[in-house]
Amino acid sequence: MGLFSKDIETLNDLFVHQLQDVYYAEKQITKALPKMIEKATDPTLKAGFQTHLEETEGQIMRLERVFEMHDERPKAVACPAIDGIIKEANEVAGDIADKAVLDAALIASAQAVEHYEITRYGTLIAWAKQLGRNDCAAILKETLDEEKATDEKLTSLAETTLNARAENVPA
Amino acid sequence: MGLFSKDIETLNDLFVHQLQDVYYAEKQITKALPKMIEKATDPTLKAGFQTHLEETEGQIMRLERVFEMHDERPKAVACPAIDGIIKEANEVAGDIADKAVLDAALIASAQAVEHYEITRYGTLIAWAKQLGRNDCAAILKETLDEEKATDEKLTSLAETTLNARAENVPA
Repeated sequence: MGLFSKDIETLNDLFVHQLQDVYYAEKQITKALPKMIEKATDPTLKAGFQTHLEETEGQIMRLERVFEMHDERPKAVACPAIDGIIKEANEVAGDIADKAVLDAALIASAQAVEHYEITRYGTLIAWAKQLGRNDCAAILKETLDEEKATDEKLTSLAETTLNARAENVPA
Repeated sequence: MGLFSKDIETLNDLFVHQLQDVYYAEKQITKALPKMIEKATDPTLKAGFQTHLEETEGQIMRLERVFEMHDERPKAVACPAIDGIIKEANEVAGDIADKAVLDAALIASAQAVEHYEITRYGTLIAWAKQLGRNDCAAILKETLDEEKATDEKLTSLAETTLNARAENVPA
């Protein structure tokens, strides 16, 4: 897209483009999470990532439902933002030997992913409502609520347990 | 980093690395915002981006203060996440001809940037507190509050004005 024509002409086009972007992002997340599950040491963190992987699969199905309701074929477009966030997560993780410090870093990376989704679903919901698609907005809201809940769970796990454990690692 | 040695050994190393990452991100944002100011049509949006550019310059100075308090030289490390978010913003903007639709897209892009900063400052504050650096945490919190306020202002501008204007663009 973009070189010779402007492919996004209306708010509806923008909405569909953003759906395709998030669809790509969710699929990349299902590929990234198993590696994070493998790297995580703390059992609560491991289990949390596992639950989130299952949730993400449900979120992909919700997106497919929204595409269908909106008479669009589910399609993914490249999303440099999520690629960058995941690349950074892998780079930082690769630089850490200690397992407790790695757990702290993994949580931070997962929260960066969550916040990307929170902002995108927030935007999608606003645009869906503007387009008179409250039905699509309601489905997208289910996912937004899940993402926010996951982010809060991760904050709580970091602040109550994992950061303290990471700090006790001798320099 | 990373190929032959593990450079992040402690929570403190991770904290410093994350400071360097956000320092890079803020500097990239000061380069991206003037282009967004130029592209924005709505005067409130333009002015909002201008204010945020000034805020970002203050946020960079705060980071430099935190580096100093923590006996570290201010240094930036590559942050693929913000690079990806900005790249995506430019790509989408390049695909849109209509000014009202472009404004709606610019707001969404700016909110993706804000959410990246919100998650990173949230993590930095938690780690600073864990490291007993409540003084650093307090400074970082000033920035976090600014980022959250900017995000809310953008949401409100999108929902009260700009999305509706974008929807009225004929297909």
